[in-house]
Amino acid sequence: MNKIITISRECGTGGHIIGEKLAKKLGVDFYDREIIEQTAKKSGFTNDFVEEQGDRITNSILFNIANSLTYANQVFAGNGVSLADKVFFVQCDVIKELAAKGPCVFVGRCADYVLKDREDCINVFVHGKKEDKIKHYMETNQCSAKEAESAIKKRDKSRANFYRYYTDSEWGVVGNYDITLDSASIGIDKCVDILYNICVGK
Amino acid sequence: MNKIITISRECGTGGHIIGEKLAKKLGVDFYDREIIEQTAKKSGFTNDFVEEQGDRITNSILFNIANSLTYANQVFAGNGVSLADKVFFVQCDVIKELAAKGPCVFVGRCADYVLKDREDCINVFVHGKKEDKIKHYMETNQCSAKEAESAIKKRDKSRANFYRYYTDSEWGVVGNYDITLDSASIGIDKCVDILYNICVGK
Repeated sequence: MNKIITISRECGTGGHIIGEKLAKKLGVDFYDREIIEQTAKKSGFTNDFVEEQGDRITNSILFNIANSLTYANQVFAGNGVSLADKVFFVQCDVIKELAAKGPCVFVGRCADYVLKDREDCINVFVHGKKEDKIKHYMETNQCSAKEAESAIKKRDKSRANFYRYYTDSEWGVVGNYDITLDSASIGIDKCVDILYNICVGK
Repeated sequence: MNKIITISRECGTGGHIIGEKLAKKLGVDFYDREIIEQTAKKSGFTNDFVEEQGDRITNSILFNIANSLTYANQVFAGNGVSLADKVFFVQCDVIKELAAKGPCVFVGRCADYVLKDREDCINVFVHGKKEDKIKHYMETNQCSAKEAESAIKKRDKSRANFYRYYTDSEWGVVGNYDITLDSASIGIDKCVDILYNICVGK
């Protein structure tokens, strides 16, 4: 087995757990928070600042009117590069360096796009029906259905915007992935098994 | 195992073969051409006529301007129902009757939509990258790359239009399926194994 698995996921689908369980079953490294931590370390920013830069771009009202206008909302690092862009570029380097170390599982952070030139990637998208996602989010975060629905909507919109902004492609469109899975319909453990078998069988 | 599997597929992905192999492995019935034959028998039209009605709708130039205008291109059966619609309605009945007989695999014909009220369906979409689909089509149909590309484009557009017209939903959008597979990337036999394991494991 010599594979990099990237998992993109809608909020409330358990995509993070699938990635964690898959990495454990395969006996390989799992990267999610570590990408942020290493990006912070490498760029000299704090973890919070690195995370905020994504939110700054994707939650701005102007972003939803026209992507190019978001520059008006950003802080610039000089040479026309915004701090958010700078953070993203450092993050790309971190992802490439981690992937170069060997087989592993990435969750989020446009890793599928960042590693698109590697031929040993399996790109996965985990999705779900609205009601299933709300149920999962409520259970995981101990909140009301209304709070869950609002949080999911905001998070998924943010991820879609972030992906579109940096990749010029659409998040969650089948052509970008080798496999997509409805985790509630298939089941979390079955999803892990399917991905495990794809990895070890090729 | 008590499952109905519906497979929708882009042209040149081997989705038909996956369905055939899966049905054989599961020991259940496989329906593709039989839907047309039974629809013809039930409606009193010929097999060719049944097939043509789909093409008549989806390949009309007007269809691509505005779906509602396609009525101008259609032959009406009376009571404002076009012959194409009549054929589709009969086809829906045929699919439901076949599904009621027991576990089986359907390929195409909007079976995922027709059977949307059943809870024992696993809806699959098989897709692929343009170059892989052209290669597969050339091998299967002994034609040039140019002919393959043209045929694939026409067929996929036709399927997407047909699906949109009758289901008011989009063909190939992740939310409509339990699982989507890039057959060239995953491999035809591996796709069959994955679907088999989902069916027998649940």
